[in-house]
Amino acid sequence: MGLLSEGLTQVVIPLAAVVGPGFALLQWFLVSKVKVSGGHGERNGFKDKLIGDEEEGVSSVEVTIKCAEIQHAISIGATSFLFTQYRYLSIFVGVFSTIIFLFLGSVKGFSTKSEACTYNTGNMCKPALANAFFSTIAFLLGAFTSVLSGFLGMKIATYANARTTLEARRGVGKAFIAAFRSGAVMGFLLAANGLLVLYITINLFKLYYGDDWEGLYESITGYGLGGSSMALFGRVGGGIYTKAADVGADLVGKVERNIPEDDPRNPAVTADNVGDNVGDIAGMGSDLFGSYAESSCAALFVASISSFGIGHDYTAMSYPLIISSMGIVVCLITTLFATNPFEIRKVSEIEPALKRQLVISTVLMTVGIAVVTFVALPSEFTLFSFGTNKAVKNWYLFFCVAIGLWAGLVIGYTTEYYTSNAYSPVQDVADSCRTGAATNVIFGLALGYKSVIIPVFAIAFAIYVSFSLAAMHGIAAAALGMLSTISTGLAIDAYGPISDNAGGIAEMAGMSHEIRERTDALDAAGNTTAAIGKGFAIGSAALVSLALFGAYVSRAGIETVDVLTPKVFIGLLVGAMLPYWFSALTMKSVGSAALKMVEEVRRQFNTIPGLMEGTAKPDYATCVKISTDASLKEMIPPGALVMLTPLIAGTSFGAETLAGILAGSLVSGVQIAISAFNTGGAWDNAKKYIEAGASEHAKSLGPKGSEPHKAAVIGDTIGDPLKDTSGPSLNILIKLMAVESVVFAPFFAAHGGLLFKWL
Amino acid sequence: MGLLSEGLTQVVIPLAAVVGPGFALLQWFLVSKVKVSGGHGERNGFKDKLIGDEEEGVSSVEVTIKCAEIQHAISIGATSFLFTQYRYLSIFVGVFSTIIFLFLGSVKGFSTKSEACTYNTGNMCKPALANAFFSTIAFLLGAFTSVLSGFLGMKIATYANARTTLEARRGVGKAFIAAFRSGAVMGFLLAANGLLVLYITINLFKLYYGDDWEGLYESITGYGLGGSSMALFGRVGGGIYTKAADVGADLVGKVERNIPEDDPRNPAVTADNVGDNVGDIAGMGSDLFGSYAESSCAALFVASISSFGIGHDYTAMSYPLIISSMGIVVCLITTLFATNPFEIRKVSEIEPALKRQLVISTVLMTVGIAVVTFVALPSEFTLFSFGTNKAVKNWYLFFCVAIGLWAGLVIGYTTEYYTSNAYSPVQDVADSCRTGAATNVIFGLALGYKSVIIPVFAIAFAIYVSFSLAAMHGIAAAALGMLSTISTGLAIDAYGPISDNAGGIAEMAGMSHEIRERTDALDAAGNTTAAIGKGFAIGSAALVSLALFGAYVSRAGIETVDVLTPKVFIGLLVGAMLPYWFSALTMKSVGSAALKMVEEVRRQFNTIPGLMEGTAKPDYATCVKISTDASLKEMIPPGALVMLTPLIAGTSFGAETLAGILAGSLVSGVQIAISAFNTGGAWDNAKKYIEAGASEHAKSLGPKGSEPHKAAVIGDTIGDPLKDTSGPSLNILIKLMAVESVVFAPFFAAHGGLLFKWL
Repeated sequence: MGLLSEGLTQVVIPLAAVVGPGFALLQWFLVSKVKVSGGHGERNGFKDKLIGDEEEGVSSVEVTIKCAEIQHAISIGATSFLFTQYRYLSIFVGVFSTIIFLFLGSVKGFSTKSEACTYNTGNMCKPALANAFFSTIAFLLGAFTSVLSGFLGMKIATYANARTTLEARRGVGKAFIAAFRSGAVMGFLLAANGLLVLYITINLFKLYYGDDWEGLYESITGYGLGGSSMALFGRVGGGIYTKAADVGADLVGKVERNIPEDDPRNPAVTADNVGDNVGDIAGMGSDLFGSYAESSCAALFVASISSFGIGHDYTAMSYPLIISSMGIVVCLITTLFATNPFEIRKVSEIEPALKRQLVISTVLMTVGIAVVTFVALPSEFTLFSFGTNKAVKNWYLFFCVAIGLWAGLVIGYTTEYYTSNAYSPVQDVADSCRTGAATNVIFGLALGYKSVIIPVFAIAFAIYVSFSLAAMHGIAAAALGMLSTISTGLAIDAYGPISDNAGGIAEMAGMSHEIRERTDALDAAGNTTAAIGKGFAIGSAALVSLALFGAYVSRAGIETVDVLTPKVFIGLLVGAMLPYWFSALTMKSVGSAALKMVEEVRRQFNTIPGLMEGTAKPDYATCVKISTDASLKEMIPPGALVMLTPLIAGTSFGAETLAGILAGSLVSGVQIAISAFNTGGAWDNAKKYIEAGASEHAKSLGPKGSEPHKAAVIGDTIGDPLKDTSGPSLNILIKLMAVESVVFAPFFAAHGGLLFKWL
Repeated sequence: MGLLSEGLTQVVIPLAAVVGPGFALLQWFLVSKVKVSGGHGERNGFKDKLIGDEEEGVSSVEVTIKCAEIQHAISIGATSFLFTQYRYLSIFVGVFSTIIFLFLGSVKGFSTKSEACTYNTGNMCKPALANAFFSTIAFLLGAFTSVLSGFLGMKIATYANARTTLEARRGVGKAFIAAFRSGAVMGFLLAANGLLVLYITINLFKLYYGDDWEGLYESITGYGLGGSSMALFGRVGGGIYTKAADVGADLVGKVERNIPEDDPRNPAVTADNVGDNVGDIAGMGSDLFGSYAESSCAALFVASISSFGIGHDYTAMSYPLIISSMGIVVCLITTLFATNPFEIRKVSEIEPALKRQLVISTVLMTVGIAVVTFVALPSEFTLFSFGTNKAVKNWYLFFCVAIGLWAGLVIGYTTEYYTSNAYSPVQDVADSCRTGAATNVIFGLALGYKSVIIPVFAIAFAIYVSFSLAAMHGIAAAALGMLSTISTGLAIDAYGPISDNAGGIAEMAGMSHEIRERTDALDAAGNTTAAIGKGFAIGSAALVSLALFGAYVSRAGIETVDVLTPKVFIGLLVGAMLPYWFSALTMKSVGSAALKMVEEVRRQFNTIPGLMEGTAKPDYATCVKISTDASLKEMIPPGALVMLTPLIAGTSFGAETLAGILAGSLVSGVQIAISAFNTGGAWDNAKKYIEAGASEHAKSLGPKGSEPHKAAVIGDTIGDPLKDTSGPSLNILIKLMAVESVVFAPFFAAHGGLLFKWL
């Protein structure tokens, strides 16, 4: 047994799960001091007027009122979209929870008799029907928590965007802190929320399961499935929404009409800003919550069939949750480094400040992991590794978690190198715009392909070391490690779309060029950090999926997944194809929706007199409706592809082919996802590089409206669906198929492979 | 024993290998009747003048002379490039054959003692040193034959291009036949050449090996390695050459200067036309020769360790070669259907005529396979399937070969559907050009991703069925089946670049708009057939690689390739990354070389007075030099990546990790290759669709120079490196790594995995 007693564990976890939201509330309170209501805003108006030379236009009440209006419109749009989406999702959840219950219940023919346990032989385990029931409940809870995470994130972001704009009048540092604090609110709320619900669920389920820890943690995997399936629709639906609006707005506004981005005359501008919140915020929140829930579930499940579970070592079993608790504390300290010791004064300090967050959290967390490992785990214990026992020391697990954490940092830094315009890759892409859009696209695609190399080696290294040390348990621990600093990751990640929105509001409110420059600088850094966040998301998705793959194989009772058998090989081949199929669906959806948007925007410019002159208002609502309808309709085919593949493959071709499919989609999906979002990020920042004109080289390519800039805008537009729709959705594809397979594994083992049986 | 005696087999194979070149000579003779020398060309001038209304300008002697000049320049350029390339390659061949000899020789410490055989226990096998020596010889022969195939193809194509142009004056049907006949010359020469050299080599090696069939066919795998490694450099080098010139010429000529494609004022135009011959002809010739050699080697090797080899059933052992012989006969008959029964009169008949070739050859070959199977194979025999024996009936093998053949047809037709502008996918892409280049690229990428689905299912189905019937032997048979109609495939494939060149010559010789329209129509059909050819190439590459993978696993003595072991899994992950790394290198190379080309072309337009007006001649030679230098320099990194990966991985990480890498690169490479060349083909034909303006819809997007057309040109340019450089080179990546692993397998089994051993 470790040093930490069961009683203390029962205190530590809920404590962290409460400290997180407390800290989030504090940050929220600080952000809320910026008033957007206008009129009686003492702080915005007069009192702080002497702060610095940077201040500009802070006394203008009209601007404040205008910001409040725009913010309100965005918030209304986002909320109404999410509620519409949730109505559709509730149907899905209803149907799918029935499927879970029926499939899992049928494993032992709906029998209510207890059976001998698989691993803890001698002990009696609860009937399959109970597992079916509790898996369904866990699924529902996971779905609910995921939706809640996305929704809260969206609320916070739409609360913060206008405040960031207003703070931008008072300097880039103030605006940065407003955006970053708001990101932190989301990060802490989400991490703590996920931890708390999971903790409570486990403790409630324990009331029924008692001694049967295998059954308990098997059912808990439903939580991951629920979280991830909502994330899928959130990412895909939100991604289509935001990119249809973005691409449509850009194609007519920037390219045809030559008006700036986010210009209020553009009818699609509100839809674009709403999109940032429903796609990049709510979708991403659900996505990372899903990763987090799944990595916890995978680690818990793997632990439950080790000596921890059999020996009923509660503290050691709760190791994943204690790691997450420590993560919240570490991130809390890390956040203080960004917001408190000194204020950012120059644009060039933004990216380093954000990167510093990553390094600080990683270093601190390494210490945190060591502490948790030595107090929570016995010094030596036994793991099951596909039929054999493996003796493991506690510092092995420390290395597993730590290597995941540091591999995340490597991936983050590589992503930054390939997508930030401070380095040569993006500058080369920008340079290739000299010869037009075609070379820009060729160089951008090549950059994306190349950017895969280091992350894949980092993931492979983490997998090899952690597997060698502690088998699948090690992989789950590494995934947990990569996600342990999720609060900071999310804060950095959410910061991007908040800044993007802030820029949009500044433009729409007609604020000065200087303010727009400040928000653009925040946004450029946000593009890079968004890419870093996506790097973490895919890296952790790879590890989580592999851990879930291991859990699936154990649960389905497969002994080897041998590539040399045709069943497995064809699974591998078809699995490697699925990310392409999925990307085709999502890219095409964005393309078609964008075409519709373009037509509508053109129609408004052509038929509304005075729109171009700014004397008439565009009809924003129709554009919002186009995005909403397209997203709700188009999220169904990719969603069905992901949700049905494991069910169909497992039922028709059996558990082994499904194992091949999981492995194939994992190894192929990682590559296409990384290359997609790095290519997109690089194009976006190549365009920003030319626009900013910060160096001699950049100036030679600009200014806005030059031929190279036009070529860069084309690249940026192509990159939009790659980086914000198809790329990040692929994380969910690989995780979700894996977790779904884990949940349904007993069914496939019992009844799967019908087609091969018939032949 | 089968019905066919050993003596008859010894007659049938060389006979087919002689009939092939005979038929090629006949076709060549027919093509040569078109005279390009001018002056005394009775046929071109007067005699046939009354043939039809289509005839145009056939009496102009100057045009004929001009064509002859241009043809001469292209031929000189291509020949000089290939000779320069071969000089570099001879260094590589020298070094690599030393490596083969040393690595394989060291397996048993350069001992000259005979040892007990692995499979045919009781029998004595020749020493490892002898295998090292003969593998090296086979490697050299394979390399030589591959180079010869490419070179002959290039010679034929440069002989045929101007003749096709001249025939185009006499009607589209005449031009079609000239181009197609020339393609057939190449197809038959190459297939027969490959068969003959292999047949002779086996018979010569047998003089030494005698009873030791294991050693004999192990050494023969060197032939495949030699063929494929030359193909790699041919494809990559040629691909970079042609696309640097093509992209560079288009970017300045079409986009900036608004002059037509292949305009003689464009300094890069000769380089572009040379490129078609060294890339699409010589490179492709080497590539398909490589596939053919490898599939034969894989099938022979797998057969040698079956009861055929052990029982010394020569005819059954030679089954792969007899299938190839039958293929030559079947293709010969098929060709007559294209050239003889009726002449094409309308442009719309071209594509159906080419597609008919595929169907006819497939149907006839199915009968041919049945005949060969029943006369050459005993009715029942034993195969080794990873340690177990499997009883197989001869009609099992018939199904294996036939399913490969028909899967090829399915892949071909799917490719045609996605890349021909007669169907909705390409028309949708063309339509998306309305909103600019960005949507064109998004739709094109989505199309490429989507086009992967059916081919992957077809390959998976072929693999499952053939493996179930006859284990790895079945896979090798399926690969053989897909390539059995290679002569027709090559004829169709070579037809494309010949027509492309013919169009270039027509433009450069200043022939009328009408002639150019005819060659354009030939070329559009050629784009689709080129895509079909690439579909066959990748489909067969997948099957061949898998068969080689099986051979590798057998030879390295690996029992299972279990995805659940970290060694294999990291191999899988890194292997799936390699096609991306490779594509990044090749795309970037094309991009950089194209930038240099653009600068040079711009320089010439800016500094040579009268160039734009057509009064001064451009400096073609400098552009040719840029392409040559870029291609020779840039082919090294991707070449090294492919050639060194198996060596490094096998030596450092061992045979199992290498197995993972092979499987990973196979399943990932297939997808990225198919999507790359279908996307590129679709963009090319979307552009041609707009240019041709054959329907109301197409007219609404055109004409040349309209905004949608400009967007389509950008897509076409992006697609160039995808479809002609990175995409098709990936075939070779997956095959070559597999065949290299087979050759070096004994070394890895004996000395591999150093890094893991140290740790």
